[in-house]
Amino acid sequence: MSFDRLIENIRAKQNPTVAGLDPKLDFIPEYIKEEAFAAHGKTLEGAAAALLAFNKGLIDALCDIVPAVKPQAAYYEMYGWQGVRTLCETIAYAREKGMFVITDAKRNDIGTTMEAYAKAHIGTTDIDGVKADAFGTDALTVNGYLGTDGIKPLLEICNTQDKGIFVLVKTSNPSSGELQDRILDDSVTVYRTMGNMCESWGADTMGKYGYSSVGAVVGATYPEQLGELRSVLKHTFFLVPGYGAQGGGAKDVAPAFDENGLGAIINSSRGIMCAWKKEGCAPEEFAAAARREALRMRDEITGYIGTIK
Amino acid sequence: MSFDRLIENIRAKQNPTVAGLDPKLDFIPEYIKEEAFAAHGKTLEGAAAALLAFNKGLIDALCDIVPAVKPQAAYYEMYGWQGVRTLCETIAYAREKGMFVITDAKRNDIGTTMEAYAKAHIGTTDIDGVKADAFGTDALTVNGYLGTDGIKPLLEICNTQDKGIFVLVKTSNPSSGELQDRILDDSVTVYRTMGNMCESWGADTMGKYGYSSVGAVVGATYPEQLGELRSVLKHTFFLVPGYGAQGGGAKDVAPAFDENGLGAIINSSRGIMCAWKKEGCAPEEFAAAARREALRMRDEITGYIGTIK
Repeated sequence: MSFDRLIENIRAKQNPTVAGLDPKLDFIPEYIKEEAFAAHGKTLEGAAAALLAFNKGLIDALCDIVPAVKPQAAYYEMYGWQGVRTLCETIAYAREKGMFVITDAKRNDIGTTMEAYAKAHIGTTDIDGVKADAFGTDALTVNGYLGTDGIKPLLEICNTQDKGIFVLVKTSNPSSGELQDRILDDSVTVYRTMGNMCESWGADTMGKYGYSSVGAVVGATYPEQLGELRSVLKHTFFLVPGYGAQGGGAKDVAPAFDENGLGAIINSSRGIMCAWKKEGCAPEEFAAAARREALRMRDEITGYIGTIK
Repeated sequence: MSFDRLIENIRAKQNPTVAGLDPKLDFIPEYIKEEAFAAHGKTLEGAAAALLAFNKGLIDALCDIVPAVKPQAAYYEMYGWQGVRTLCETIAYAREKGMFVITDAKRNDIGTTMEAYAKAHIGTTDIDGVKADAFGTDALTVNGYLGTDGIKPLLEICNTQDKGIFVLVKTSNPSSGELQDRILDDSVTVYRTMGNMCESWGADTMGKYGYSSVGAVVGATYPEQLGELRSVLKHTFFLVPGYGAQGGGAKDVAPAFDENGLGAIINSSRGIMCAWKKEGCAPEEFAAAARREALRMRDEITGYIGTIK
């Protein structure tokens, strides 16, 4: 019910950011890969082992200062079911360490099938009367192109459990405007229409900070739209990608926040994961470098928005 | 390059249908579940084993008469990474048996991340110089809300390998119109706009039957829009869900085809998987019942469209 737990994590750490865990092999220090390949060969199994070791190192280094992680499903699926097992293990490890986990999977489908995705990611699966967590994450990104049918099965879980969703509204990529910026015959853009749907989908799941369990993905690369949407979607918490490697800076993300410094969480993936490469430090220091970058990002953003109330 | 291989499968079998493999435990005969639970317990592992045995039975019974299968990713993810392993094994088994495999996963993301999904599902993954197939399917369903950036990485694989994609255009669910039927300020609907994008995305991948490697998902539950889209999207092959359990009949799907009986493949999932329940036959006959229903469906549809040329 709502994003209260995420918000409390953000307030406690005075840090409105989330570390993206998009572990391509290229981002992982050689010594970790060598160990994994020695045990499993240059196989999907070997890659999955390297990903897990890298993620655990990052989580250990970040869990006391960063409130949340966002694993991106694509980078795990790229390494087959073995990679997907690493996604499961990463989610469990981060939650054990007290982090809020947002699985960035942009899932979407119609009613009965969306119900299966909802159970898979934020709910529980029934196996002939025995309950199991398939992925057991805290929040899931979803795509609303199919309308309410594709969102409703998620709301049923959000309404009864401490879970949330983020619906794609205005994405951070250059071509996001091809459809999202088009204007409908009532003079409203597609992205704003989707944003309005988030407000209505979330209406029954309001938390104590005034935000529902239905959030929106709004890119840092479009600060003007970010400000527009913040001013009209009063109860919709924003997940903001596009900071750092994609070009958005602290000034660009500032409009995402409300007057209390709440209402948004800013993602950085490559900036944090690859800090060791950018710094040019020893590969063994990858996690310490990630921590340094996470602190720098926190300070840069809170420098704009002040204390989070 | 194009859907030629799928089309040749359809012509050879004179059957423009695809069997959806959406294996919920409820659909699986008790004796299969009992065996799987005896070996693995009522666990995700046990469920995954039951799914695989059920799918293999269906594939064995269908592979000489049905050209393609469409596993729906949600029903595998619902059983964790173990379920996702069953998805991998199902894809490999169906391809071994000569079937064309469409993974219905509706994936979507921005450029670099979409590249990871593209490699995962229809391409190959590089593991420090060693190539591996992560999922190795023939075609993938995708969602185009993010625009061209989210489609381009797939086209690079479609252009060089024998692979295809189906983009969501007009989905079969009741609320699909909330966004898809809205009219943009140039008086064109959102679904038609998405359809037009499919034509332009596919322009460089034309096959010998006049269809590109960029197909569209168009629901059987909206026969009028199906006919409209068939008449304007000349080079876009349609994947048509919504036949059977969702209410579409042979008459409703007939407008999806061109004058040669090509241009579309009609999906049935529950109709085929649960034929044994509907017939009330012995559970051990589930695969034979699926075959009977697949033949009935083939005959019903080809009764409307005639010989596939």
